[in-house]
Amino acid sequence: MTFQIPCPAEPGMALSEVDTPALLLDLDAFDTNLQRLDESLQGKNVRVRPHAKSHKCPEIALRQMAHGAVGVCCQKVTEAEAMVAGGIPDVMVSNQVVGPRKIRRLVALAQRARVSVLVDDAANVAALNDAAGNAGVKLNVLVEVNVGANRCGVEAGEPARLMAGAIASSSHLHFRGIHAYQGAAQHVRSADERRELIERAVRLVSETLALLQEDGLACEIVTGAGTGTYLIEAGSNVYNEIQPGSYVFMDADYARNLGKEGKPIHDFLHSLFVWTTVMSHSVPGRVVVDAGLKALSVDSGLPLVDDPGAEYLGASDEHGVLRVDEPSHFPLGKKIRLIPGHCDPTVNLYDWIVGYRGDTVESVWPITARGALY
Amino acid sequence: MTFQIPCPAEPGMALSEVDTPALLLDLDAFDTNLQRLDESLQGKNVRVRPHAKSHKCPEIALRQMAHGAVGVCCQKVTEAEAMVAGGIPDVMVSNQVVGPRKIRRLVALAQRARVSVLVDDAANVAALNDAAGNAGVKLNVLVEVNVGANRCGVEAGEPARLMAGAIASSSHLHFRGIHAYQGAAQHVRSADERRELIERAVRLVSETLALLQEDGLACEIVTGAGTGTYLIEAGSNVYNEIQPGSYVFMDADYARNLGKEGKPIHDFLHSLFVWTTVMSHSVPGRVVVDAGLKALSVDSGLPLVDDPGAEYLGASDEHGVLRVDEPSHFPLGKKIRLIPGHCDPTVNLYDWIVGYRGDTVESVWPITARGALY
Repeated sequence: MTFQIPCPAEPGMALSEVDTPALLLDLDAFDTNLQRLDESLQGKNVRVRPHAKSHKCPEIALRQMAHGAVGVCCQKVTEAEAMVAGGIPDVMVSNQVVGPRKIRRLVALAQRARVSVLVDDAANVAALNDAAGNAGVKLNVLVEVNVGANRCGVEAGEPARLMAGAIASSSHLHFRGIHAYQGAAQHVRSADERRELIERAVRLVSETLALLQEDGLACEIVTGAGTGTYLIEAGSNVYNEIQPGSYVFMDADYARNLGKEGKPIHDFLHSLFVWTTVMSHSVPGRVVVDAGLKALSVDSGLPLVDDPGAEYLGASDEHGVLRVDEPSHFPLGKKIRLIPGHCDPTVNLYDWIVGYRGDTVESVWPITARGALY
Repeated sequence: MTFQIPCPAEPGMALSEVDTPALLLDLDAFDTNLQRLDESLQGKNVRVRPHAKSHKCPEIALRQMAHGAVGVCCQKVTEAEAMVAGGIPDVMVSNQVVGPRKIRRLVALAQRARVSVLVDDAANVAALNDAAGNAGVKLNVLVEVNVGANRCGVEAGEPARLMAGAIASSSHLHFRGIHAYQGAAQHVRSADERRELIERAVRLVSETLALLQEDGLACEIVTGAGTGTYLIEAGSNVYNEIQPGSYVFMDADYARNLGKEGKPIHDFLHSLFVWTTVMSHSVPGRVVVDAGLKALSVDSGLPLVDDPGAEYLGASDEHGVLRVDEPSHFPLGKKIRLIPGHCDPTVNLYDWIVGYRGDTVESVWPITARGALY
């Protein structure tokens, strides 16, 4: 006997009928976010390659392409496979790909799409070159440069120059440029501090580019930036590609970033919600909803309740406990929207994203790369 | 073009070949845990109904049944459907089921398996009764009693008596007993404090049972208990069913519970691991692995590294940063086992669980109820 998880919604259904917990996308807010990114980049000389790790959904990627994106970034080879299967012709795996099985899949994908990948290790360069040779492809490779996040990437300057040279001298690799993402800056609250961190990254990139120029190594792509800082990289005249991801959704954590005058930034709207039902109201002043740790990720803080009269106090596996000001406003069966603390790992818990306008479901899109860990 | 996430392993494969991040089950440790639960309950007069929310895997549930379990608990109707589809004939949804769609599925499941459910609200009793009548089934219902966790459940004593009476007088409901799970006690570190909390729960249950007896309402089932406290409930002579879940896996958080002499408890072995690969080693003294927030849940703390020379410092979406004592022991491509902080939401991130003995994969079981949120 086989079992399939039922889809919580279908187009045309009233939002109130959508089963919970479900991942909702407010399509008007989503459209606004696509538009606002475009507007914010007018006059800036950068290409946009949004990060698909946030949404893992080819339908969303296709809409980003329709807004002029040159392709998408992915973090995993299987995530890239899902995007290519969904019609995206140009995918950058903005990550190291290590291990023979993953590398085989990467070069196989490069046989049917434009694929690029990052490196920060010479042995990995050799392994990629061997596999690309065996597959008969020329793989596009960028050097990842550590510009302050201290996670992956070689140091700027001489180490980056050496790595670029190793790529350029590999028979089946095509040196494309450098990847300089300052991940640690994205959620720094102060606008001034974010700017300082990115300006330092820009200096490191510039110094590296000068060395590469001495070697005659042209950087077709200089990429980085997330939702928290992309306007700074876009205005740097050094980066020529940016890769924001969360801007399509916004989450509670990004909304805590402050703008120049110390006020919250409202560039983008919350379009992503977890739809949840009040399932118990036994304890005075509290209600329990059916969205807990398996329905939202709490790594960057608890979700916000899209209702000023309630506060999400704590999550257990399948339950969320809310403090409510007026219990009669939260009867058993009432459905509520929660704003996730962190969009990326929350989206990865769902098989579908339910698009709606007003009170009506318009679309149900599969999150094709949900669980694409490899 | 369709896309399917590839399975990371197949039986007979060397463990070193299993793609990462993957969820591993050490089958020897798993067998030991099944055995140790049996041994610890010898002479105790309780049935075991393990909680399937921890593993979501019918293959594991079937092995628990082979060890004498009377059925399983689930938290969601769709989780229960997955277990019935996998061959489990008796499923308790140890949770409130609210909303017409969920209730319809619940009573439909009761047409083909032995199904029970909890209530803590009179209107929900009426809704279940109507649906059971429409489906032509008699649904087994327990009163959930709040014994200290202050999440769901009516208060002990008179409120529980009223709720039991409401069930018993419903034409299509069968009153089965009471559910009294003290979830807040499970991870209290001190053995004495855990005992105090459960002894209080036992008193509340006893008082309630006395009232029900006055009304002639027999409790066939008095259930509760998790891995942290089940021996106390099992020795209470009040509970006659227990529902531990995490004991099959153990996780880093449960391993922090202390025993009677203030020492760590080692009743159960860590059988569940996340298999991960060193994918970058650019920063001195650190390595980066490919298991981050989408490969393990950090709600109850970071994972432990199954290697004394390393410590998991932090998770981002697809990366984990480890401090390592001796970098040469952690070369690029090395695979490492991590012990998850919290097993339940970690398991829910994977489509398969890879069983192994020694260095060889023995089984690859689907986590059928992964994502069964409804």
